[in-house]
Amino acid sequence: MTFREDGAAALEWVASYLERVRELPVLAQVEPGELRGRLPAAPPEQAEPFADVLRDLDEVLLPAVTHWQSPRFFAYFANTGSEPGILADLLVAGLNQVGILWRTSPALQEVEEVALDWLAQLLGLPAGLHGHLEDTASTATMAALAAARAARPDARIVVATEHTHSSVAKACRLLELELRLAPVDETFALRPEPLDLDGACAVVGTVGTTSTGSVDPIPALAEACARESVWLHVDAAYAGSAAVCPELRGHFAGWERADSVVVNAHKWLLTPMGCSALWTRRPDDLRRAFSLVPEYLRVSEDVPSLSEFSPALGRRFRALTLWTVLRCYGRQGLQAQIREAIRLAALFEELVRAEPGWEVVAPRHFSLVCFRRDDSDAENEALLERVNASGEAFLSHTRLEGRYALRLAVGNARTTEDDVRAAWEVLRREAGRAPAPA
Amino acid sequence: MTFREDGAAALEWVASYLERVRELPVLAQVEPGELRGRLPAAPPEQAEPFADVLRDLDEVLLPAVTHWQSPRFFAYFANTGSEPGILADLLVAGLNQVGILWRTSPALQEVEEVALDWLAQLLGLPAGLHGHLEDTASTATMAALAAARAARPDARIVVATEHTHSSVAKACRLLELELRLAPVDETFALRPEPLDLDGACAVVGTVGTTSTGSVDPIPALAEACARESVWLHVDAAYAGSAAVCPELRGHFAGWERADSVVVNAHKWLLTPMGCSALWTRRPDDLRRAFSLVPEYLRVSEDVPSLSEFSPALGRRFRALTLWTVLRCYGRQGLQAQIREAIRLAALFEELVRAEPGWEVVAPRHFSLVCFRRDDSDAENEALLERVNASGEAFLSHTRLEGRYALRLAVGNARTTEDDVRAAWEVLRREAGRAPAPA
Repeated sequence: MTFREDGAAALEWVASYLERVRELPVLAQVEPGELRGRLPAAPPEQAEPFADVLRDLDEVLLPAVTHWQSPRFFAYFANTGSEPGILADLLVAGLNQVGILWRTSPALQEVEEVALDWLAQLLGLPAGLHGHLEDTASTATMAALAAARAARPDARIVVATEHTHSSVAKACRLLELELRLAPVDETFALRPEPLDLDGACAVVGTVGTTSTGSVDPIPALAEACARESVWLHVDAAYAGSAAVCPELRGHFAGWERADSVVVNAHKWLLTPMGCSALWTRRPDDLRRAFSLVPEYLRVSEDVPSLSEFSPALGRRFRALTLWTVLRCYGRQGLQAQIREAIRLAALFEELVRAEPGWEVVAPRHFSLVCFRRDDSDAENEALLERVNASGEAFLSHTRLEGRYALRLAVGNARTTEDDVRAAWEVLRREAGRAPAPA
Repeated sequence: MTFREDGAAALEWVASYLERVRELPVLAQVEPGELRGRLPAAPPEQAEPFADVLRDLDEVLLPAVTHWQSPRFFAYFANTGSEPGILADLLVAGLNQVGILWRTSPALQEVEEVALDWLAQLLGLPAGLHGHLEDTASTATMAALAAARAARPDARIVVATEHTHSSVAKACRLLELELRLAPVDETFALRPEPLDLDGACAVVGTVGTTSTGSVDPIPALAEACARESVWLHVDAAYAGSAAVCPELRGHFAGWERADSVVVNAHKWLLTPMGCSALWTRRPDDLRRAFSLVPEYLRVSEDVPSLSEFSPALGRRFRALTLWTVLRCYGRQGLQAQIREAIRLAALFEELVRAEPGWEVVAPRHFSLVCFRRDDSDAENEALLERVNASGEAFLSHTRLEGRYALRLAVGNARTTEDDVRAAWEVLRREAGRAPAPA
């Protein structure tokens, strides 16, 4: 029985990884194809020991890993695979549940229902919503828009802004819907007057856009959508977790009127990758879009399975992980990590504002700061490349009103004030360094 | 630092679970809502210890678990979360990689490419295919059909049979394609002459259908599709893993000409849930359907990310699990478990054939046996319910030419000859028992 021994080694590997991850270069320092070239071109004929996998993980794979678990990861939306979340994923794999019908795993289905109820309560969403999990917000948003299309087959337009996440455009392509862009104001939020809903089946309003964290005017959108019987989908994939803090609920005003809401627990809610929560107050429309029960899945109990509301038939027991995280942090623990991330982002914003030659280029609502050097786009881009190449911090970028902007997103629960100050020092240092000749 | 202690307890829980799972009732013996009623209605305010989660897993959740890990699980397509697969999932959660762009995890992308290459080699698929992983075959098939639609925007029909998996109908609804059913022969395989491809953008041929394991005539379909420039998608979600055995390759003749092929590693290839392999020889069509790179994802390196070929933007590091499984079993280990499952299914088939009053109702190609008592549909249905209620084995059913049929699918790697004989004894015992009065 080597499972216990191999398991102890795997567990120790993870424990030690989490202890040393701060010291590793955040952005992988390899060239495309470099890892591939170091791996055998053919699979082994005979079984290899699990210990060899662990060895290669250290020696071969790790240099090609970009460390999302690093407290100095500030790119995209930083996230955290928390300790309870990691261990719950071990249990999930051990149980290997496959949710197809209720009977194939009552625990999976009912824990998913309970975890989504709990999370709705934590975020201040209304009671009675139908909730389930998808792997990513891309899938959740696509499912919501498919339901919107099913509810209004005559209307083929989705209204959003240029700051709406690209997954909406991707879903529109898949669903053959037209994406109509509404204008934004100076805070990069949708400008609701006038809002053209002619021919629209859905509006996507975002609380916490990817580029800047901007907040669309959800109350006005909810009002207009209700008037015109248009589906309102609220994309709060990143920022939604912040609603666990009552003092931040103002940003979410109106989302209780949405037809669907998506929040990625795997972003800012301590859950490992693959856990996106979708709620709807119109489950019948989701079911109309996705329910299909062939003979081999007909059973005696009359319980709709979650797969009837979802694009895929089978589902992992990811709810066990979410449920574990909610229990092992509790409301107060979840609030504490959101507040700390926002405090650190505010601190970073202050550092930028206080320094001549730098500017903050978008309002900060949550834990994302958009900023730049008072310099050319090319210089800013080169600066970002130098910072990321240093391995000391990893940031990303966007473009606002045509200008290049740097993004620092706090969101890893292990990030400390020292980490944020260190990132700022790397930025200042690299800004003061002449770029290498081309 | 409680991670090591909690982790040791979680690991021991899984080890002990795998040791005792054979003794647990295979099908959960609870009523709908029973588990939900035992869980708190509201989330905790304060953090709870991880040990409480483990305690509740045993005391509250386990009775509501249907044990897919049980060697006496014979329903649907039985599967296995193998020991290396489980431990790899622990590493995946610990690393918490998010594949968005190549740079967000070169290891994820390149290990995925390598693992798909390896698996293609193991299964005898041609070199040079583009491969990636989706969570389920539902998603993979939908992606393939979206590519087929993008390649032939004028053609809106998908040709398949009544035995094609329901995910094809679901994908057609999402993609607004029409599903045209072709007739089947007496083996439940598509009858290729005449094949009406007028207006078709795709044909789905199945190697190993869900109801009976039947095999559509892929060479004839490939020929017709090539002639008419129609996309051929081969659904080998269940049976594809069997192609690791050269003596079974005959069933897969022609799939090397398919435009896309799907094989679920999480079914018969020892990988925990959420690992469906999709290969295509037309990656440009997939990319046309799904590629979309917004500004905040533009980077200097010119490497297409896997998300450009896939409905979702972000992906888990599920390739690490597949790669680990392929290494820890090797070609010979994978072959051995396929051969043993087929040997056991053949044994079961013999037992049924040898017993008066029972009949095998479909040809057996792989590890699935379709059979019934020579009795009414209602009696067969009641028999299945009694067997499943016993907890001693779990089987499922289908309907063939209007008649109810029982399905026994061997596929759990821990299943032994004793387990198969035990299932047969339960069936015989329950068949001899008068049904309880209604």
